[in-house]
Amino acid sequence: VRFDHVAIAVRDLEAAVDLWTRSFGLRCEHVEDVPAQGVRVAFLLGDGPGARIELIQATDPESGAARYLGQRGAALHHVAFAVPDLAAALAASALPKVDAAPRPGAEGRHVAFLHPQGTGGVLVEWVGDPGA
Amino acid sequence: VRFDHVAIAVRDLEAAVDLWTRSFGLRCEHVEDVPAQGVRVAFLLGDGPGARIELIQATDPESGAARYLGQRGAALHHVAFAVPDLAAALAASALPKVDAAPRPGAEGRHVAFLHPQGTGGVLVEWVGDPGA
Repeated sequence: VRFDHVAIAVRDLEAAVDLWTRSFGLRCEHVEDVPAQGVRVAFLLGDGPGARIELIQATDPESGAARYLGQRGAALHHVAFAVPDLAAALAASALPKVDAAPRPGAEGRHVAFLHPQGTGGVLVEWVGDPGA
Repeated sequence: VRFDHVAIAVRDLEAAVDLWTRSFGLRCEHVEDVPAQGVRVAFLLGDGPGARIELIQATDPESGAARYLGQRGAALHHVAFAVPDLAAALAASALPKVDAAPRPGAEGRHVAFLHPQGTGGVLVEWVGDPGA
């Protein structure tokens, strides 16, 4: 398993990209609409290899991100791990799931979220990535 | 700047290490008491290089981690970036700070926290690391 990214829910994606690049020296890798999740996201890179920071702005008021922003405000949102076979990982895990089956996520990859109740209060995303 | 780790506040460090290693295939790098911060922490590694996951259990009821756990419960806690010169980074930044000056953190490094008010609701830690 590879630590892929940590995500931050933000109200204004452009302002957030500006903050994290200017104040912390991160670089914006790319910005992408993910209609299947009702969000627009930006991936940020630090120096060196490894995990990225994902900024998430809700574009659909019914999305999980919109509900989270309404309840908690802008805040850390989830951690994501890349696994080589997402369906197999879901099938093998007894943890409670938000998504019982893979669904489309950012970067053309399939993703599934696990429920925070099973993971000590932390929303966890698995990302299917054959190279992981 | 290097993305060093994301931290999760937990109530029971041993149980959390067990969860994250068994259910997600992370490896425990080391466990450490950090009396200056009133916490006991574990650093977890995924495959490949890059950022780690830090689990934080409060050992001092007056610690920031204990207050966070009391208010929010177990949850994602902060993101940390390694900077080569922590004092210079603090001096150069106009963002509101929790720590005006470096103080002792985990792994024998000095750290300083920035206030979530200036960073879109996210607690950010800078870690001084000459190699960063």
